Amino acid sequence: MAGDGAERARPVSVAGKVMAILNAFAQGGVRLNLSEICRRSGLPLATGHRLVGELVGGGFLERVPDGTYRIGTRLWRIGSQAPAVTGLRELALPHMEDLYEATHDNVQLGVLRDDRVLIVERLRGTRSVPVVTQVGALLPLHTTGLGKVLLAYAPPEVREKVLSGELVRHSARSITAADDLRRALEQVRGSGYALTRDEMTLGASSVGAPVRDASGEVVAALSLVSATRSADLRRLLPPLTTAARALSRDVAAHWGGDTDLFSADRKTGA
Amino acid sequence: MAGDGAERARPVSVAGKVMAILNAFAQGGVRLNLSEICRRSGLPLATGHRLVGELVGGGFLERVPDGTYRIGTRLWRIGSQAPAVTGLRELALPHMEDLYEATHDNVQLGVLRDDRVLIVERLRGTRSVPVVTQVGALLPLHTTGLGKVLLAYAPPEVREKVLSGELVRHSARSITAADDLRRALEQVRGSGYALTRDEMTLGASSVGAPVRDASGEVVAALSLVSATRSADLRRLLPPLTTAARALSRDVAAHWGGDTDLFSADRKTGA
Repeated sequence: MAGDGAERARPVSVAGKVMAILNAFAQGGVRLNLSEICRRSGLPLATGHRLVGELVGGGFLERVPDGTYRIGTRLWRIGSQAPAVTGLRELALPHMEDLYEATHDNVQLGVLRDDRVLIVERLRGTRSVPVVTQVGALLPLHTTGLGKVLLAYAPPEVREKVLSGELVRHSARSITAADDLRRALEQVRGSGYALTRDEMTLGASSVGAPVRDASGEVVAALSLVSATRSADLRRLLPPLTTAARALSRDVAAHWGGDTDLFSADRKTGA
Repeated sequence: MAGDGAERARPVSVAGKVMAILNAFAQGGVRLNLSEICRRSGLPLATGHRLVGELVGGGFLERVPDGTYRIGTRLWRIGSQAPAVTGLRELALPHMEDLYEATHDNVQLGVLRDDRVLIVERLRGTRSVPVVTQVGALLPLHTTGLGKVLLAYAPPEVREKVLSGELVRHSARSITAADDLRRALEQVRGSGYALTRDEMTLGASSVGAPVRDASGEVVAALSLVSATRSADLRRLLPPLTTAARALSRDVAAHWGGDTDLFSADRKTGA
Protein backbone atom coordinates (compact mmCIF):
# COMPACT_ATOMS: atom_id res chain seq x y z
CA MET A 1 0.00 0.00 0.00
CA ALA A 2 1.19 3.52 -0.76
CA GLY A 3 2.96 5.33 2.05
CA ASP A 4 3.60 2.12 3.93
CA GLY A 5 7.25 1.72 3.01
CA ALA A 6 8.10 -0.09 6.24
CA GLU A 7 6.18 -3.07 4.93
CA ARG A 8 8.36 -3.44 1.86
CA ALA A 9 11.90 -2.84 3.09
CA ARG A 10 13.90 -6.07 3.02
CA PRO A 11 14.53 -6.93 6.66
CA VAL A 12 18.01 -7.76 7.90
CA SER A 13 17.77 -8.55 11.63
CA VAL A 14 15.68 -11.40 12.99
CA ALA A 15 13.41 -8.94 14.82
CA GLY A 16 12.96 -7.12 11.52
CA LYS A 17 12.06 -10.40 9.82
CA VAL A 18 9.49 -11.21 12.51
CA MET A 19 7.94 -7.76 12.06
CA ALA A 20 7.96 -8.19 8.26
CA ILE A 21 6.02 -11.46 8.59
CA LEU A 22 3.42 -9.87 10.85
CA ASN A 23 3.25 -6.79 8.60
CA ALA A 24 2.39 -9.10 5.70
CA PHE A 25 -1.00 -9.60 7.33
CA ALA A 26 -1.64 -5.84 7.52
CA GLN A 27 -1.72 -5.65 3.71
CA GLY A 28 -5.13 -7.33 3.42
CA GLY A 29 -6.18 -10.95 3.18
CA VAL A 30 -6.84 -12.66 6.48
CA ARG A 31 -5.35 -16.03 5.47
CA LEU A 32 -1.99 -16.27 3.73
CA ASN A 33 0.00 -19.29 2.67
CA LEU A 34 3.71 -19.54 3.35
CA SER A 35 4.88 -18.47 -0.11
CA GLU A 36 2.64 -15.38 -0.01
CA ILE A 37 3.95 -14.48 3.45
CA CYS A 38 7.53 -14.82 2.17
CA ARG A 39 6.80 -12.82 -0.98
CA ARG A 40 5.25 -9.95 1.00
CA SER A 41 7.93 -9.95 3.68
CA GLY A 42 10.87 -10.38 1.28
CA LEU A 43 12.12 -13.51 3.07
CA PRO A 44 13.56 -16.76 1.65
CA LEU A 45 11.21 -19.71 2.05
CA ALA A 46 13.41 -21.55 4.58
CA THR A 47 13.72 -18.52 6.85
CA GLY A 48 10.01 -17.76 6.54
CA HIS A 49 9.10 -21.36 7.32
CA ARG A 50 11.20 -21.42 10.48
CA LEU A 51 9.99 -18.04 11.81
CA VAL A 52 6.34 -18.68 10.96
CA GLY A 53 6.65 -21.94 12.88
CA GLU A 54 7.97 -20.08 15.89
CA LEU A 55 5.17 -17.51 15.67
CA VAL A 56 2.60 -20.32 15.52
CA GLY A 57 4.20 -21.90 18.56
CA GLY A 58 3.83 -18.63 20.46
CA GLY A 59 0.20 -18.12 19.41
CA PHE A 60 1.02 -14.99 17.41
CA LEU A 61 -0.05 -16.75 14.21
CA GLU A 62 -2.47 -19.68 13.85
CA ARG A 63 -2.27 -22.45 11.30
CA VAL A 64 -5.58 -23.14 9.56
CA PRO A 65 -6.31 -26.79 8.59
CA ASP A 66 -6.13 -25.87 4.88
CA GLY A 67 -2.44 -25.02 5.39
CA THR A 68 -2.75 -21.23 5.43
CA TYR A 69 -1.91 -18.94 8.34
CA ARG A 70 -3.76 -16.14 10.07
CA ILE A 71 -3.19 -13.67 12.90
CA GLY A 72 -3.64 -15.39 16.26
CA THR A 73 -5.84 -14.41 19.16
CA ARG A 74 -2.80 -13.71 21.34
CA LEU A 75 -1.57 -11.00 18.98
CA TRP A 76 -5.05 -9.50 18.89
CA ARG A 77 -5.05 -9.41 22.67
CA ILE A 78 -1.65 -7.71 22.87
CA GLY A 79 -2.59 -5.23 20.15
CA SER A 80 -5.82 -4.38 21.93
CA GLN A 81 -3.69 -2.84 24.72
CA ALA A 82 -2.42 -0.08 22.37
CA PRO A 83 -3.31 3.06 24.32
CA ALA A 84 -3.18 5.51 21.41
CA VAL A 85 -6.26 3.93 19.85
CA THR A 86 -7.95 2.14 22.74
CA GLY A 87 -7.91 5.26 24.94
CA LEU A 88 -9.65 7.26 22.24
CA ARG A 89 -11.99 4.34 21.58
CA GLU A 90 -12.98 4.12 25.26
CA LEU A 91 -13.84 7.82 25.34
CA ALA A 92 -15.71 7.66 22.04
CA LEU A 93 -17.85 4.54 22.43
CA PRO A 94 -20.61 6.05 24.62
CA HIS A 95 -20.99 8.95 22.19
CA MET A 96 -20.99 6.57 19.23
CA GLU A 97 -23.72 4.53 20.91
CA ASP A 98 -25.81 7.68 21.42
CA LEU A 99 -25.31 8.55 17.77
CA TYR A 100 -26.31 5.08 16.65
CA GLU A 101 -29.41 5.22 18.77
CA ALA A 102 -30.38 8.63 17.36
CA THR A 103 -29.86 7.70 13.70
CA HIS A 104 -29.53 3.92 13.29
CA ASP A 105 -26.86 4.65 10.69
CA ASN A 106 -23.27 3.45 10.56
CA VAL A 107 -21.09 5.35 13.03
CA GLN A 108 -17.35 5.56 12.39
CA LEU A 109 -14.38 6.95 14.30
CA GLY A 110 -11.07 7.56 12.54
CA VAL A 111 -7.68 9.19 12.98
CA LEU A 112 -5.13 10.41 10.46
CA ARG A 113 -2.34 7.94 9.87
CA ASP A 114 0.22 8.80 7.23
CA ASP A 115 -1.94 9.81 4.27
CA ARG A 116 -5.00 7.75 5.08
CA VAL A 117 -7.80 7.36 7.66
CA LEU A 118 -7.27 4.63 10.23
CA ILE A 119 -10.66 3.26 11.34
CA VAL A 120 -10.48 3.03 15.15
CA GLU A 121 -14.07 1.98 15.86
CA ARG A 122 -17.29 1.37 14.03
CA LEU A 123 -20.87 0.62 14.93
CA ARG A 124 -22.88 -0.97 12.17
CA GLY A 125 -26.26 0.49 11.30
CA THR A 126 -28.44 -2.60 11.06
CA ARG A 127 -31.20 -0.62 9.35
CA SER A 128 -28.89 1.49 7.18
CA VAL A 129 -26.66 1.01 4.14
CA PRO A 130 -24.27 -1.96 4.53
CA VAL A 131 -20.62 -0.87 4.73
CA VAL A 132 -17.66 -3.19 4.59
CA THR A 133 -15.28 -0.98 6.57
CA GLN A 134 -13.40 -2.93 9.22
CA VAL A 135 -11.82 -1.69 12.41
CA GLY A 136 -8.09 -1.34 11.66
CA ALA A 137 -8.67 -0.61 7.97
CA LEU A 138 -6.97 2.30 6.20
CA LEU A 139 -9.27 4.31 3.91
CA PRO A 140 -8.52 7.13 1.45
CA LEU A 141 -8.78 10.71 2.71
CA HIS A 142 -10.38 12.34 -0.33
CA THR A 143 -13.42 10.07 -0.73
CA THR A 144 -14.66 9.65 2.86
CA GLY A 145 -16.40 11.97 5.32
CA LEU A 146 -13.83 11.07 7.99
CA GLY A 147 -10.99 11.65 5.57
CA LYS A 148 -12.14 15.04 4.32
CA VAL A 149 -12.40 16.28 7.91
CA LEU A 150 -8.96 14.97 8.83
CA LEU A 151 -7.44 16.34 5.61
CA ALA A 152 -9.08 19.75 6.03
CA TYR A 153 -7.45 20.17 9.45
CA ALA A 154 -4.24 18.21 8.78
CA PRO A 155 -0.79 19.77 9.00
CA PRO A 156 -0.20 21.71 5.72
CA GLU A 157 2.56 19.32 4.59
CA VAL A 158 0.20 16.32 4.79
CA ARG A 159 -2.51 18.21 2.90
CA GLU A 160 -0.10 19.30 0.16
CA LYS A 161 1.27 15.77 -0.16
CA VAL A 162 -2.21 14.39 -0.75
CA LEU A 163 -3.22 17.24 -3.08
CA SER A 164 -0.10 16.81 -5.17
CA GLY A 165 -0.41 13.01 -5.33
CA GLU A 166 -2.81 10.86 -7.32
CA LEU A 167 -6.45 11.21 -6.22
CA VAL A 168 -7.70 7.71 -6.97
CA ARG A 169 -11.18 7.38 -8.49
CA HIS A 170 -13.12 4.97 -6.24
CA SER A 171 -16.50 5.72 -7.83
CA ALA A 172 -17.80 7.87 -10.69
CA ARG A 173 -18.39 10.63 -8.12
CA SER A 174 -14.92 10.69 -6.53
CA ILE A 175 -13.17 14.06 -6.51
CA THR A 176 -10.01 13.51 -8.57
CA ALA A 177 -8.92 17.08 -9.38
CA ALA A 178 -6.71 18.78 -6.79
CA ASP A 179 -8.43 22.15 -7.24
CA ASP A 180 -11.86 20.65 -6.61
CA LEU A 181 -10.59 18.90 -3.49
CA ARG A 182 -8.92 22.10 -2.28
CA ARG A 183 -12.24 23.93 -2.58
CA ALA A 184 -14.06 21.10 -0.81
CA LEU A 185 -11.59 21.27 2.09
CA GLU A 186 -12.09 25.05 2.36
CA GLN A 187 -15.82 24.39 2.65
CA VAL A 188 -15.15 21.87 5.43
CA ARG A 189 -13.13 24.41 7.39
CA GLY A 190 -15.82 27.05 6.81
CA SER A 191 -18.78 24.90 7.83
CA GLY A 192 -17.16 22.61 10.40
CA TYR A 193 -18.35 19.41 8.74
CA ALA A 194 -17.59 17.31 5.66
CA LEU A 195 -19.95 15.70 3.19
CA THR A 196 -19.39 12.91 0.69
CA ARG A 197 -22.10 11.80 -1.74
CA ASP A 198 -21.46 8.50 -3.56
CA GLU A 199 -17.74 9.37 -3.67
CA MET A 200 -16.42 6.11 -2.21
CA THR A 201 -19.27 3.76 -3.12
CA LEU A 202 -22.34 4.57 -5.23
CA GLY A 203 -25.38 4.62 -2.97
CA ALA A 204 -23.50 5.48 0.21
CA SER A 205 -23.01 8.98 1.59
CA SER A 206 -21.37 10.27 4.71
CA VAL A 207 -21.11 13.30 6.91
CA GLY A 208 -18.07 13.85 9.15
CA ALA A 209 -17.22 16.19 12.01
CA PRO A 210 -13.95 16.99 13.81
CA VAL A 211 -12.98 15.87 17.33
CA ARG A 212 -10.67 18.39 19.03
CA ASP A 213 -8.34 18.26 22.01
CA ALA A 214 -7.94 20.90 24.73
CA SER A 215 -5.81 23.09 22.46
CA GLY A 216 -8.43 23.01 19.70
CA GLU A 217 -6.37 20.77 17.47
CA VAL A 218 -8.31 18.15 15.45
CA VAL A 219 -7.20 14.73 16.71
CA ALA A 220 -9.91 12.49 15.21
CA ALA A 221 -13.11 12.53 13.19
CA LEU A 222 -16.55 11.08 13.75
CA SER A 223 -18.91 10.26 10.89
CA LEU A 224 -22.27 8.84 9.93
CA VAL A 225 -22.51 6.71 6.77
CA SER A 226 -25.99 6.21 5.36
CA ALA A 227 -27.79 5.34 2.16
CA THR A 228 -27.59 8.30 -0.22
CA ARG A 229 -31.37 8.34 -0.60
CA SER A 230 -31.81 8.90 3.15
CA ALA A 231 -28.68 11.02 3.69
CA ASP A 232 -30.59 14.08 4.81
CA LEU A 233 -28.28 16.66 6.40
CA ARG A 234 -31.10 18.05 8.53
CA ARG A 235 -31.48 14.61 10.08
CA LEU A 236 -27.80 13.66 10.38
CA LEU A 237 -25.92 16.84 11.18
CA PRO A 238 -27.43 17.86 14.55
CA PRO A 239 -26.77 14.54 16.34
CA LEU A 240 -23.34 14.19 14.67
CA THR A 241 -22.04 17.62 15.67
CA THR A 242 -23.54 17.21 19.15
CA ALA A 243 -21.72 13.90 19.64
CA ALA A 244 -18.45 15.24 18.17
CA ARG A 245 -18.54 18.21 20.55
CA ALA A 246 -19.34 16.01 23.54
CA LEU A 247 -16.45 13.70 22.63
CA SER A 248 -14.15 16.72 22.20
CA ARG A 249 -15.02 17.81 25.74
CA ASP A 250 -14.17 14.34 27.05
CA VAL A 251 -10.89 14.29 25.11
CA ALA A 252 -9.99 17.76 26.44
CA ALA A 253 -10.89 16.77 30.02
CA HIS A 254 -9.13 13.41 30.07
CA TRP A 255 -6.11 14.15 27.95
CA GLY A 256 -5.32 17.70 28.97
CA GLY A 257 -1.61 17.95 28.27
CA ASP A 258 -1.19 14.44 26.98
CA THR A 259 -2.01 14.90 23.33
CA ASP A 260 1.01 12.70 22.76
CA LEU A 261 -1.48 9.85 23.01
CA PHE A 262 -2.55 10.71 19.49
CA SER A 263 0.73 11.82 18.03
CA ALA A 264 1.68 8.42 16.63
CA ASP A 265 -1.42 8.56 14.47
CA ARG A 266 -0.72 12.00 13.12
CA LYS A 267 2.90 11.77 12.13
CA THR A 268 3.62 11.41 8.47
CA GLY A 269 5.98 8.99 6.77
CA ALA A 270 6.65 5.45 7.99
CA MET B 1 -1.11 -14.90 35.29
CA ALA B 2 -2.27 -18.44 35.89
CA GLY B 3 -2.53 -20.66 32.83
CA ASP B 4 -0.43 -18.33 30.73
CA GLY B 5 2.82 -20.21 30.90
CA ALA B 6 3.97 -19.07 27.48
CA GLU B 7 4.55 -15.64 28.98
CA ARG B 8 7.00 -16.89 31.55
CA ALA B 9 9.21 -19.37 29.69
CA ARG B 10 12.71 -18.00 29.18
CA PRO B 11 13.04 -17.43 25.43
CA VAL B 12 16.00 -18.78 23.49
CA SER B 13 15.56 -17.76 19.84
CA VAL B 14 15.37 -14.14 18.73
CA ALA B 15 11.79 -14.62 17.55
CA GLY B 16 10.99 -16.04 21.00
CA LYS B 17 12.58 -12.99 22.62
CA VAL B 18 10.56 -10.63 20.44
CA MET B 19 7.37 -12.48 21.40
CA ALA B 20 8.38 -12.40 25.09
CA ILE B 21 8.78 -8.62 24.93
CA LEU B 22 5.36 -8.16 23.34
CA ASN B 23 3.82 -10.66 25.76
CA ALA B 24 5.11 -8.49 28.63
CA PHE B 25 2.45 -5.97 27.65
CA ALA B 26 -0.34 -8.56 27.84
CA GLN B 27 0.22 -8.92 31.58
CA GLY B 28 -1.35 -5.55 32.43
CA GLY B 29 0.06 -2.04 32.64
CA VAL B 30 -0.08 -0.08 29.42
CA ARG B 31 3.29 1.65 29.89
CA LEU B 32 6.38 -0.28 30.93
CA ASN B 33 9.95 0.85 31.39
CA LEU B 34 12.83 -1.13 29.98
CA SER B 35 13.77 -2.92 33.20
CA GLU B 36 10.17 -4.03 33.76
CA ILE B 37 9.97 -5.30 30.17
CA CYS B 38 13.19 -7.26 30.71
CA ARG B 39 12.03 -8.62 34.06
CA ARG B 40 8.74 -9.84 32.61
CA SER B 41 10.30 -11.28 29.46
CA GLY B 42 13.31 -12.85 31.21
CA LEU B 43 15.82 -10.99 29.00
CA PRO B 44 19.16 -9.38 29.90
CA LEU B 45 19.02 -5.57 29.78
CA ALA B 46 21.34 -5.25 26.75
CA THR B 47 19.31 -7.71 24.66
CA GLY B 48 16.04 -6.12 25.74
CA HIS B 49 17.33 -2.63 24.92
CA ARG B 50 18.39 -3.65 21.42
CA LEU B 51 15.18 -5.53 20.57
CA VAL B 52 12.88 -2.88 22.08
CA GLY B 53 14.70 -0.32 19.92
CA GLU B 54 14.02 -2.41 16.82
CA LEU B 55 10.36 -2.81 17.76
CA VAL B 56 10.07 0.97 18.24
CA GLY B 57 11.68 1.47 14.82
CA GLY B 58 9.05 -0.78 13.26
CA GLY B 59 6.14 0.92 15.03
CA PHE B 60 5.30 -2.20 17.04
CA LEU B 61 6.14 -0.36 20.27
CA GLU B 62 6.08 3.38 20.90
CA ARG B 63 8.39 5.31 23.19
CA VAL B 64 6.57 7.73 25.48
CA PRO B 65 8.37 11.02 26.33
CA ASP B 66 8.69 9.91 29.98
CA GLY B 67 10.95 7.07 28.82
CA THR B 68 8.44 4.23 29.09
CA TYR B 69 7.15 2.10 26.23
CA ARG B 70 3.69 1.08 25.09
CA ILE B 71 2.10 -1.04 22.35
CA GLY B 72 2.15 0.83 19.04
CA THR B 73 -0.70 1.56 16.70
CA ARG B 74 0.81 -0.68 14.01
CA LEU B 75 0.59 -3.73 16.27
CA TRP B 76 -3.00 -2.84 17.12
CA ARG B 77 -3.78 -2.67 13.42
CA ILE B 78 -2.18 -6.06 12.69
CA GLY B 79 -3.88 -7.65 15.70
CA SER B 80 -7.24 -6.28 14.64
CA GLN B 81 -7.04 -8.61 11.60
CA ALA B 82 -7.27 -11.71 13.83
CA PRO B 83 -10.22 -13.55 12.30
CA ALA B 84 -11.01 -15.76 15.29
CA VAL B 85 -12.18 -12.77 17.29
CA THR B 86 -12.97 -10.15 14.67
CA GLY B 87 -15.22 -12.51 12.70
CA LEU B 88 -17.27 -13.22 15.80
CA ARG B 89 -17.22 -9.54 16.71
CA GLU B 90 -18.56 -8.54 13.27
CA LEU B 91 -21.45 -10.98 13.58
CA ALA B 92 -22.19 -9.95 17.15
CA LEU B 93 -22.06 -6.15 16.98
CA PRO B 94 -25.52 -5.55 15.44
CA HIS B 95 -27.10 -7.80 18.08
CA MET B 96 -25.12 -6.09 20.83
CA GLU B 97 -26.33 -2.71 19.58
CA ASP B 98 -29.94 -3.94 19.67
CA LEU B 99 -29.40 -5.18 23.21
CA TYR B 100 -27.88 -1.88 24.27
CA GLU B 101 -30.78 0.01 22.80
CA ALA B 102 -33.31 -2.22 24.57
CA THR B 103 -31.65 -2.04 28.00
CA HIS B 104 -29.04 0.76 28.10
CA ASP B 105 -26.94 -1.58 30.19
CA ASN B 106 -23.39 -2.79 29.57
CA VAL B 107 -23.31 -5.46 26.87
CA GLN B 108 -20.40 -7.90 26.79
CA LEU B 109 -19.27 -10.67 24.44
CA GLY B 110 -16.74 -13.26 25.58
CA VAL B 111 -15.15 -16.56 24.62
CA LEU B 112 -13.43 -19.22 26.69
CA ARG B 113 -9.65 -18.94 26.57
CA ASP B 114 -7.68 -21.33 28.73
CA ASP B 115 -9.42 -21.05 32.11
CA ARG B 116 -10.72 -17.53 31.77
CA VAL B 117 -13.14 -15.36 29.74
CA LEU B 118 -11.57 -13.33 26.95
CA ILE B 119 -13.61 -10.14 26.42
CA VAL B 120 -14.05 -9.82 22.64
CA GLU B 121 -16.34 -6.79 22.56
CA ARG B 122 -18.15 -4.50 24.92
CA LEU B 123 -20.65 -1.69 24.65
CA ARG B 124 -20.74 0.60 27.62
CA GLY B 125 -24.08 1.40 29.20
CA THR B 126 -23.89 5.17 29.67
CA ARG B 127 -26.87 5.14 32.00
CA SER B 128 -25.94 1.93 33.80
CA VAL B 129 -23.35 0.78 36.34
CA PRO B 130 -19.79 1.75 35.33
CA VAL B 131 -17.63 -1.29 34.53
CA VAL B 132 -13.91 -1.22 33.94
CA THR B 133 -13.76 -4.29 31.70
CA GLN B 134 -11.63 -3.69 28.61
CA VAL B 135 -11.74 -5.44 25.27
CA GLY B 136 -8.92 -7.98 25.32
CA ALA B 137 -9.11 -8.47 29.10
CA LEU B 138 -9.19 -11.92 30.70
CA LEU B 139 -11.75 -12.29 33.50
CA PRO B 140 -12.40 -15.14 35.94
CA LEU B 141 -14.97 -17.77 34.99
CA HIS B 142 -16.64 -18.31 38.37
CA THR B 143 -17.57 -14.69 39.19
CA THR B 144 -18.96 -13.39 35.89
CA GLY B 145 -22.16 -14.04 33.95
CA LEU B 146 -20.14 -14.68 30.79
CA GLY B 147 -17.80 -17.01 32.66
CA LYS B 148 -20.50 -19.09 34.32
CA VAL B 149 -22.12 -19.70 30.93
CA LEU B 150 -18.83 -20.66 29.29
CA LEU B 151 -17.86 -22.85 32.24
CA ALA B 152 -21.27 -24.57 32.36
CA TYR B 153 -20.89 -25.68 28.74
CA ALA B 154 -17.08 -26.06 28.67
CA PRO B 155 -15.37 -29.38 27.89
CA PRO B 156 -15.46 -31.48 31.12
CA GLU B 157 -11.67 -31.30 31.56
CA VAL B 158 -11.75 -27.48 31.60
CA ARG B 159 -14.63 -27.50 34.09
CA GLU B 160 -12.90 -29.98 36.39
CA LYS B 161 -9.66 -28.02 36.24
CA VAL B 162 -11.44 -24.86 37.38
CA LEU B 163 -13.50 -26.68 40.02
CA SER B 164 -10.40 -28.35 41.47
CA GLY B 165 -8.34 -25.15 41.45
CA GLU B 166 -8.55 -22.11 43.71
CA LEU B 167 -11.80 -20.14 43.33
CA VAL B 168 -10.54 -16.64 44.09
CA ARG B 169 -12.78 -14.39 46.21
CA HIS B 170 -13.25 -11.16 44.21
CA SER B 171 -16.02 -9.83 46.44
CA ALA B 172 -17.80 -10.94 49.61
CA ARG B 173 -20.39 -12.64 47.40
CA SER B 174 -18.02 -14.66 45.17
CA ILE B 175 -18.68 -18.41 45.05
CA THR B 176 -15.51 -19.98 46.45
CA ALA B 177 -16.64 -23.54 47.26
CA ALA B 178 -16.42 -26.07 44.42
CA ASP B 179 -19.70 -27.76 45.40
CA ASP B 180 -21.59 -24.46 45.34
CA LEU B 181 -20.14 -23.62 41.93
CA ARG B 182 -20.98 -27.10 40.62
CA ARG B 183 -24.61 -26.60 41.65
CA ALA B 184 -24.66 -23.12 40.08
CA LEU B 185 -23.38 -24.55 36.79
CA GLU B 186 -26.08 -27.24 36.85
CA GLN B 187 -28.63 -24.46 37.23
CA VAL B 188 -27.14 -22.68 34.22
CA ARG B 189 -27.45 -25.80 32.08
CA GLY B 190 -31.00 -26.33 33.32
CA SER B 191 -32.24 -22.79 32.75
CA GLY B 192 -30.08 -21.77 29.78
CA TYR B 193 -28.78 -18.60 31.43
CA ALA B 194 -26.35 -17.58 34.19
CA LEU B 195 -26.74 -15.03 36.95
CA THR B 196 -24.19 -13.30 39.12
CA ARG B 197 -25.17 -10.95 41.93
CA ASP B 198 -22.34 -8.80 43.37
CA GLU B 199 -19.96 -11.73 42.84
CA MET B 200 -17.24 -9.84 40.96
CA THR B 201 -17.90 -6.30 42.25
CA LEU B 202 -20.36 -5.24 44.93
CA GLY B 203 -23.19 -3.31 43.29
CA ALA B 204 -22.84 -4.93 39.87
CA SER B 205 -24.82 -7.93 38.67
CA SER B 206 -24.91 -9.75 35.38
CA VAL B 207 -26.93 -12.20 33.37
CA GLY B 208 -25.32 -14.29 30.62
CA ALA B 209 -26.59 -16.50 27.81
CA PRO B 210 -24.85 -18.97 25.48
CA VAL B 211 -24.11 -18.44 21.79
CA ARG B 212 -24.12 -21.71 19.85
CA ASP B 213 -22.81 -22.82 16.47
CA ALA B 214 -24.59 -25.00 13.91
CA SER B 215 -23.81 -28.16 15.86
CA GLY B 216 -25.28 -26.70 19.06
CA GLU B 217 -21.92 -26.30 20.72
CA VAL B 218 -21.48 -23.18 22.89
CA VAL B 219 -18.81 -21.02 21.23
CA ALA B 220 -19.30 -17.72 23.06
CA ALA B 221 -21.44 -15.97 25.65
CA LEU B 222 -23.33 -12.70 25.67
CA SER B 223 -24.12 -10.82 28.87
CA LEU B 224 -25.71 -7.73 30.35
CA VAL B 225 -24.05 -6.10 33.34
CA SER B 226 -26.18 -3.69 35.34
CA ALA B 227 -26.46 -2.12 38.78
CA THR B 228 -27.63 -4.76 41.25
CA ARG B 229 -30.54 -2.55 42.35
CA SER B 230 -31.93 -2.50 38.79
CA ALA B 231 -30.86 -6.02 37.80
CA ASP B 232 -34.40 -7.26 37.25
CA LEU B 233 -34.43 -10.60 35.43
CA ARG B 234 -37.87 -9.90 33.96
CA ARG B 235 -36.38 -6.81 32.29
CA LEU B 236 -33.01 -8.24 31.24
CA LEU B 237 -33.59 -11.87 30.30
CA PRO B 238 -36.02 -11.55 27.36
CA PRO B 239 -33.85 -9.18 25.27
CA LEU B 240 -30.66 -11.06 26.23
CA THR B 241 -31.89 -14.50 25.22
CA THR B 242 -33.46 -13.07 22.08
CA ALA B 243 -30.16 -11.48 21.03
CA ALA B 244 -28.14 -14.59 21.94
CA ARG B 245 -30.43 -16.77 19.81
CA ALA B 246 -30.29 -14.33 16.89
CA LEU B 247 -26.49 -14.28 17.09
CA SER B 248 -26.44 -18.09 17.28
CA ARG B 249 -28.44 -18.23 14.04
CA ASP B 250 -25.93 -15.89 12.37
CA VAL B 251 -22.99 -17.95 13.65
CA ALA B 252 -24.60 -21.15 12.39
CA ALA B 253 -25.38 -19.61 9.00
CA HIS B 254 -22.00 -17.99 8.40
CA TRP B 255 -19.72 -20.50 10.01
CA GLY B 256 -21.43 -23.76 9.15
CA GLY B 257 -18.57 -26.23 9.11
CA ASP B 258 -15.87 -23.78 10.07
CA THR B 259 -16.08 -23.93 13.85
CA ASP B 260 -12.31 -23.96 13.66
CA LEU B 261 -12.63 -20.19 13.73
CA PHE B 262 -13.31 -20.48 17.43
CA SER B 263 -11.11 -23.39 18.29
CA ALA B 264 -8.10 -21.31 19.24
CA ASP B 265 -10.21 -19.68 21.93
CA ARG B 266 -11.47 -22.93 23.35
CA LYS B 267 -8.37 -25.01 23.56
CA THR B 268 -6.83 -25.38 26.99
CA GLY B 269 -3.21 -24.99 27.97
CA ALA B 270 -0.79 -22.54 26.35
